[in-house]
Amino acid sequence: MMGSPWWQQPIPAVSEEMRGAAAERQEQLTKPPGSLGQLEAIAVRLAGLQATDRPRLDRLHVAVFAGDHGVTAEGVSAFPQAVTLEMVKNFARGGAAISVLARELGADLEVVDVGTAVDGGELPGVIRSRAGDGTANFCHGPAMSSAQRDTALAAGRAAADRAAAVGAHAFVGGEMGIGNTTAATALACALMRESPRGVVGPGTGLDAAGIAHKAEVIARALERHEALETPFDALAALGGFEIAALAGAYIAAAQHGIPSLVDGFISSVAALAAAREVPAVLPWLVCTHRSAEPGHAKVLAALDAEPLIDLGMRLGEGSGAAVAVSVIRTACALHNGMATFAEAGVSNN
Amino acid sequence: MMGSPWWQQPIPAVSEEMRGAAAERQEQLTKPPGSLGQLEAIAVRLAGLQATDRPRLDRLHVAVFAGDHGVTAEGVSAFPQAVTLEMVKNFARGGAAISVLARELGADLEVVDVGTAVDGGELPGVIRSRAGDGTANFCHGPAMSSAQRDTALAAGRAAADRAAAVGAHAFVGGEMGIGNTTAATALACALMRESPRGVVGPGTGLDAAGIAHKAEVIARALERHEALETPFDALAALGGFEIAALAGAYIAAAQHGIPSLVDGFISSVAALAAAREVPAVLPWLVCTHRSAEPGHAKVLAALDAEPLIDLGMRLGEGSGAAVAVSVIRTACALHNGMATFAEAGVSNN
Repeated sequence: MMGSPWWQQPIPAVSEEMRGAAAERQEQLTKPPGSLGQLEAIAVRLAGLQATDRPRLDRLHVAVFAGDHGVTAEGVSAFPQAVTLEMVKNFARGGAAISVLARELGADLEVVDVGTAVDGGELPGVIRSRAGDGTANFCHGPAMSSAQRDTALAAGRAAADRAAAVGAHAFVGGEMGIGNTTAATALACALMRESPRGVVGPGTGLDAAGIAHKAEVIARALERHEALETPFDALAALGGFEIAALAGAYIAAAQHGIPSLVDGFISSVAALAAAREVPAVLPWLVCTHRSAEPGHAKVLAALDAEPLIDLGMRLGEGSGAAVAVSVIRTACALHNGMATFAEAGVSNN
Repeated sequence: MMGSPWWQQPIPAVSEEMRGAAAERQEQLTKPPGSLGQLEAIAVRLAGLQATDRPRLDRLHVAVFAGDHGVTAEGVSAFPQAVTLEMVKNFARGGAAISVLARELGADLEVVDVGTAVDGGELPGVIRSRAGDGTANFCHGPAMSSAQRDTALAAGRAAADRAAAVGAHAFVGGEMGIGNTTAATALACALMRESPRGVVGPGTGLDAAGIAHKAEVIARALERHEALETPFDALAALGGFEIAALAGAYIAAAQHGIPSLVDGFISSVAALAAAREVPAVLPWLVCTHRSAEPGHAKVLAALDAEPLIDLGMRLGEGSGAAVAVSVIRTACALHNGMATFAEAGVSNN
C-alpha cells in the first residue's frame, strides 16, 4: 500500500510571535508610522516566515527549470521550440538575464533540464532531471502522465532540498519553455474556472490574431480535459514539466521552512497549482512582481497576493523575482539598521 | 549691472547617438524584445544622459537638505518642529532611513542644514548653509526673501558641485522639514494652477480634519500670493529652504551633465519649480518612485514622468530614490552583462 505522497507532509506554521515583534519594531523606528509602505510589510512578513525579528535575504538559491511543450505544434509561440535548449545553454554559460541577475545578487544559480524536446545530453552547469522529451500536445491528450508529473515534482523538490542544504534564506524559482504561457494559461483556467479569453495574453510577443488563436487552442484543450478531479490532475493534463517542477519546489521549500519568491505569470500559475493541492503552502509564497502578461492579475488575486514591483516585465526565468530581491534586501536593511526613536532621541508624536 | 543668474547657464543636450546605440543593443539581447519592460527604458535613458552605451550607477552622491517652516504655526503637521533638527542629528549619526540606504548603496551621504528653526550649531557630519532660522509663515508674507532663496539655491548648487567633483554617476537629493508637505503643496498649486483640495494630502500622518485644515491654510496663502511672476518667485513666496536647495541642486547637476534621481512628493515639487524656471533641466530629472502622498500623481504628470517603483512610501529624505537605485543598477547590469543572440547562438524570431 502507498502512503500519502511527499507533498502532503507537514508544512511549518508562520511564527506569529516574530511577526508581531517585527511589526512592533517597525513602529519604533525613526519615521512616521507606515511611511515605508510595502517595505515595512515585506520585512514583517519575512520575519514571521524566518521566525526571527531580524529577517535576512543574503543567501539565495535560484533554480531555473526548462521544459518543452507539445502544444507548440498548434503555432502558439512567437519563437521556435529550439530556443528552449539554446537558452538552457545560455543560462549555464552566464549570458541570460537570470544569469546576470544571480551574479549581481551573489546567488547560487542552478539550471535544471526537466525535459527539453531535444535531449541536449550532459551539459556543463545543467542538472538533468528529465521527465520526457517535452510534453505531449494537450489538444490531443494529457500533456504528461501521472508518473511524468511526479518525476517533475520531484525534480523541484530536489532543488528545494539543495536550497535547504546551503541554508538559503529564500528560494527563487524560474522557468524557460517555448509555449509555456499557453500551458500556464490553460492550467490557470482549469484551476480558477475561467474562460481562456479572460486570461490569455501575448506571451513572448504574439499579435492580436495570434492571441485569438492561442485562446481558441486553449478552449479546445479545456473542453477535452473537462473531468479533472484534483489540482495536480489538472497539472498533469495541461501543465508542463517546468511548471510541475516549480510546484514541487514551492511545496518542498515550505516544508523546509524556506519562503519562495514567486516570479511572474507562469511561476504564479505553478504556485496556484501548489496552493490548491496543498493549501498550507500559501503563506510561504511571496509573489514579487506583477507581470505585463494580462492574465497575471487574476492569478495574483487567486493567490491573494500584492506584488512589490510592477516594471512591465514579461521574461520569466525568475527574472522578476530576482529584481525584487534587491528591494526586499533593502527592506531588511532598513528594518534591521534604522535607529528607534529612543535610540536617536527623536520626538515621537 | 548683474548678468544672468547662474541657473540660466547652459545645460548639455542628451546624447541621442548613445541613446540610440543602447536601444539597439537592447534589441539584440537574449530575451523577447521589450520583455524587461521599464528596466530596458531606464537603461536606454541613462545611456543618453551619461553619453555612453554602457550606463552605470556605481558612484552616487546623496545630499539631504533640512529646513524648517513658519507655516507649522498654523498646526499643519502631525510632528513638532523640533523633529527637523533631531532628524538632522539622526541622519548624521547613521540611524535614519537614508543613512541606512546610503550605507547599503555605498553612496556618499551629506546632510546640509539650510535653515532649521533652532540653530544646532556645528554638528559632526552636517554642512551648514543656513538661509535663516526656518522660513516665515507664508500665510502672513513671503516664506523667504529673494536673497534667502538664492542662498538656498546656492546651497543646492554646492552639493551638485561636490557630486561632480567625485565623479558621481547620479545625484540623489533628499529633504527633511516638518511642515514641508504644506509648503510643497502650496508651491505645486501655484506652479500648476491647481486648487489645494486637488493636491493636499496627509503628509506624515494627518487625519481627514487635519487635511481639510491644511487645505484651508494653503488656500489662504495662495490668495495672499496671487501675483507671482516667475516660478522662482513662487518658490520664494511659498517654498522652503530645502525645496529651493533641491531645485538648485537639480539645475547645477544638469549643468554638470549629471542626472538627478528625484525622490517623492516634495522633491518632485522642487523638480517642477526647477523645470518651470529652467526647462532644459527636465530631461535630467529621473523621477524614481510614486509616493503615497496623493498630490504626487499630478506633479509627476506635470513632469511627464513615469516612476519605476510604487511601494506606498511617503517618508522623503531621498529614501524612495535610494530604493530605486538598486532597481536601476540591476537594469544597468542586465543591459551591460547579457549576451546577444549572436554571442549566445540563440535563434531570434
